[in-house]
Amino acid sequence: MKPAEARAAFRGGKVCPTAGWVPGYTQTNLIAIERDWAYDVLLFCQRNPKPCPVLDVSDPGSTATVLAPGADLSTDLPRYRVWRDGVLAGEHPDVKSLWREDLVAFQIGCSFTFETALAEAGVPLRHVEQGRNVSMYVTGRQCRPAGRMRGPMVVSMRPIPAELVDLAIRISGAMPAVHGAPVHVGDPAELGIEDLAKPDFGDPVRAAPGDVPVFWACGVTPQAALMASRPPFAITHAPGHMFVTDVRDEEYRVQAGGWAKVLR
Amino acid sequence: MKPAEARAAFRGGKVCPTAGWVPGYTQTNLIAIERDWAYDVLLFCQRNPKPCPVLDVSDPGSTATVLAPGADLSTDLPRYRVWRDGVLAGEHPDVKSLWREDLVAFQIGCSFTFETALAEAGVPLRHVEQGRNVSMYVTGRQCRPAGRMRGPMVVSMRPIPAELVDLAIRISGAMPAVHGAPVHVGDPAELGIEDLAKPDFGDPVRAAPGDVPVFWACGVTPQAALMASRPPFAITHAPGHMFVTDVRDEEYRVQAGGWAKVLR
Repeated sequence: MKPAEARAAFRGGKVCPTAGWVPGYTQTNLIAIERDWAYDVLLFCQRNPKPCPVLDVSDPGSTATVLAPGADLSTDLPRYRVWRDGVLAGEHPDVKSLWREDLVAFQIGCSFTFETALAEAGVPLRHVEQGRNVSMYVTGRQCRPAGRMRGPMVVSMRPIPAELVDLAIRISGAMPAVHGAPVHVGDPAELGIEDLAKPDFGDPVRAAPGDVPVFWACGVTPQAALMASRPPFAITHAPGHMFVTDVRDEEYRVQAGGWAKVLR
Repeated sequence: MKPAEARAAFRGGKVCPTAGWVPGYTQTNLIAIERDWAYDVLLFCQRNPKPCPVLDVSDPGSTATVLAPGADLSTDLPRYRVWRDGVLAGEHPDVKSLWREDLVAFQIGCSFTFETALAEAGVPLRHVEQGRNVSMYVTGRQCRPAGRMRGPMVVSMRPIPAELVDLAIRISGAMPAVHGAPVHVGDPAELGIEDLAKPDFGDPVRAAPGDVPVFWACGVTPQAALMASRPPFAITHAPGHMFVTDVRDEEYRVQAGGWAKVLR
């Protein structure tokens, strides 16, 4: 299956999480917000690039993106969330009728991109083994605010065998456009997380003996910032229901000798 | 000398290019522009990260930066340029009296950062050997526009011994926050450059036998965009008269195993 075929399926009405769809192609988080707030959002992302790496920004009113020529951001994701004054106001399989002339669409890098690289290098992904969504937690660390945008950093956690932690750090660290190296290894309390068994988003995931919890900055951070900052109107993807781009994961890897398309 | 001592000297009235000042510490390009244009500038940088990697953006009216706590962006550079309607309107040793409540200051990565790494790896820098500024050229390639901001990509050129080109690519490619890998190697005509002996900015630099011209995206690109886009008012550094930060060059290197502060 090609990315355009996946998008056509979602445009045609298929609703399901996109994990595992079209392996090797980058998926993105979506946030569409009115132009009046766009500077604050873009600056928030610039100031917090680990949780909020921007891969593309549309022109106001446009649902097109350079990451997938011919795609329509208002129909080609499997499921959307609509936010009013920072409160979830509904979920929809498309948002064509809700798109507005003043909406600017941000696409934010997603950790699915480095998960492919981890798996290929032999690093086990416990949530995949267990058929679950990755565990995500709201931390006690505040992002650097920007204008009206503020909020806590959200992290995803993967239990990694202790002897493979260094490899996982090196692989993800070479992909700064999709969250990069972990923000913390080891102690959940250091991030203000009380109980790993009770994630704020996603599912609880069991660690295997010898695993160490490794925490990466997470693309759900902008959604937490929407809830904290309460812009009048926003549209996002539904968790796990991402946008499938035409860009290969490999293009976001900083390569020795390569012309890496880092942060495009 | 420490970065703060260099800034104090410039604040005290010293005027000179900053090449070679406080080796190992990152220097930046400055663009301050009114808040009404700030979204277009920030989006232009997001869309053109190779010539315009953003290292910090100030709040409106503020002359402070996280890159150098205690510094004042309106006094601590050795020389400034003031632009009105896209036309150079004057050069000043400080711009304290010209700073406005609605000015937003952008700091853009500078190729001085990867030059240190090139030199340490044994790659000769011909312009340094010849005591000259690097050669810079306006290319025929247009940047991806953003709102009212548009303009051609400007490149810097360094003649590199053919057998060291691969090394130079790898070293700079690991530093995407300071222009990253070259945009072209070899043929100036490919970039629309007619005569290497006649740079648009900086000085002509002689190649040694066996050298190949290598072209990097250049932080002068935003100044070319100011000239093309004609915002009512802007302040920039004068060419070669950069801002010296407290951040070590090394922090902008994407490292295997490291927590690189890529694009902060």
